[in-house]
Amino acid sequence: MKEFAEIQRIANEELQKIEWPAKPSGLYEPISYCLGDGGKRLRPAFALFACQLFCGDIQPAKKAALALEIFHNFTLMHDDIMDKADKRRGKPTVHLVWNENTAILSGDTMMALAYKTLAETNANVLIPALTLFNDTVIGVMEGQQYDMNFESRTDVQLEEYMEMIRLKTAVLLAASLKMGAICGKAKQEDADALYEFGINVGLAFQLKDDLLDVYGDTKTFGKNIGGDIVDNKKTYLYIKALELSKGTDKEKQLQHWFSLSTFDREEKIKAVTDIYNALGVKAIAENEMQKCYDKGAEAIDRTSLNKEQKNQLLSLANQLLDRKS
Amino acid sequence: MKEFAEIQRIANEELQKIEWPAKPSGLYEPISYCLGDGGKRLRPAFALFACQLFCGDIQPAKKAALALEIFHNFTLMHDDIMDKADKRRGKPTVHLVWNENTAILSGDTMMALAYKTLAETNANVLIPALTLFNDTVIGVMEGQQYDMNFESRTDVQLEEYMEMIRLKTAVLLAASLKMGAICGKAKQEDADALYEFGINVGLAFQLKDDLLDVYGDTKTFGKNIGGDIVDNKKTYLYIKALELSKGTDKEKQLQHWFSLSTFDREEKIKAVTDIYNALGVKAIAENEMQKCYDKGAEAIDRTSLNKEQKNQLLSLANQLLDRKS
Repeated sequence: MKEFAEIQRIANEELQKIEWPAKPSGLYEPISYCLGDGGKRLRPAFALFACQLFCGDIQPAKKAALALEIFHNFTLMHDDIMDKADKRRGKPTVHLVWNENTAILSGDTMMALAYKTLAETNANVLIPALTLFNDTVIGVMEGQQYDMNFESRTDVQLEEYMEMIRLKTAVLLAASLKMGAICGKAKQEDADALYEFGINVGLAFQLKDDLLDVYGDTKTFGKNIGGDIVDNKKTYLYIKALELSKGTDKEKQLQHWFSLSTFDREEKIKAVTDIYNALGVKAIAENEMQKCYDKGAEAIDRTSLNKEQKNQLLSLANQLLDRKS
Repeated sequence: MKEFAEIQRIANEELQKIEWPAKPSGLYEPISYCLGDGGKRLRPAFALFACQLFCGDIQPAKKAALALEIFHNFTLMHDDIMDKADKRRGKPTVHLVWNENTAILSGDTMMALAYKTLAETNANVLIPALTLFNDTVIGVMEGQQYDMNFESRTDVQLEEYMEMIRLKTAVLLAASLKMGAICGKAKQEDADALYEFGINVGLAFQLKDDLLDVYGDTKTFGKNIGGDIVDNKKTYLYIKALELSKGTDKEKQLQHWFSLSTFDREEKIKAVTDIYNALGVKAIAENEMQKCYDKGAEAIDRTSLNKEQKNQLLSLANQLLDRKS
């Protein structure tokens, strides 16, 4: 049985081994660039890991795993255009190295290549694999739309936020696990339980992201602390803080800071973090993460996997949720 | 047996009948708008028509036909962003009515919806249908990349141009016919012959487009005459004219007109058309169209279809190639 870290390494190797067509180079060079070393390869590793749990081998999920990672990177390429992001995994984004049209068209092609790779999955599981993939792709796009809608809204509720991160982040992680289960010929109930586990771990994963942005360690985080605050992002922490401070001065201060277009970066981060601290939103978010983790653990407990396999999944979740970056 | 025009009408009706999700409206409203009345629905009608030829019924190809049209309209939505087009079928383009990000994300979602619709095709033909669809999608994108490359190139050769229009236009028309044949349980050789017919009709179809832009009747053409000339588009006529005038004054005049960024619209159209006329490129393009038509007819002749069915396909080709708009 392979460890998760080894599976991540294999997923990346398999991805690097793919030989994209040479021509037209304007289409395929940005794709190779985007899929180059750097990602954590969580999604394909989830698929391979789940497959191994049910059939003792990662091989049957290989094509589907690659499809998930190609799709994920396509969403990053297009999201980076929409967000006008200039860096991704420490490298300049495709729309900056080339141009927007190239990022649109190479991204479109990556989506098609994801489907083409998925279609090479064993024919006897292709229909459920394709159905899951289609619904996941559409879910991720709905999530991105809600995320964009939130930018111009000032009244986003926590429930809406949780639904947005479910779609934008959790469904793809959940689908990766379920995809592996399907390829590994798991029973329907086991595949569904892995999906439910994945949704909850995915939600907790995003909450961890929100927390790291404010409370992460500058040395290990890899990005600048406070990026979400600087960008006026409506994170769990911000929405919860607004909710708790309703009708008080703190609500007005928060709204004020999030309405400014020019400000001193460090001053804003400090002011907003002080409000978060005064309201105790860190502990509330951590508690919400724990609730998600517990729900995920319950789902795992219902599966027909053995004790050791269940522990492997829980330890994987712990690893993701205790991360420093 | 249904006539082609009736099948086009049915294809449009089926498309309008689809109920897209209500939320998020920012994602699905542009999709409904883009797929609204107005298109010729050639691609789904090709699929339904071919299916009927082989099994006497259009029903088995219904989902695949809709998938082809949804995909085609997705390519239009993204091409319109890349070309900064402001109108499509007489209506303002999605990126103008909404914005570019919306056109990117709604377009991405249409591609996923195309796959989701295709996946509802009868399971016993799904694998060949999906394989054909994947290769077609990737071909169309490669064609769009070559088309974009040509904008900044001054040395495009006729052979490259024909390859570009094969990918950008012909493969989707050909795939539509073959998709219908697959859904109608045609023999492999018949499905392949229909593809070859479609490629050649598709090439001729695009040459007709190039001709109509210069020699169309303003009353019936629906667009302004000379749009390609105004936009410095490297069409068959332009590339052939450059080739024929090599080393002469006409070559210099053509290159001069196609290098200007400001000019009198009517004066430029007249000057370029005069050069085309002097070189006789209209007749050469018409001759090339005829050659494509003949190759397509040969492919049809090889099929196991009966005389009447073969004539139906030829008359369909004639109808498309004799069109006025």
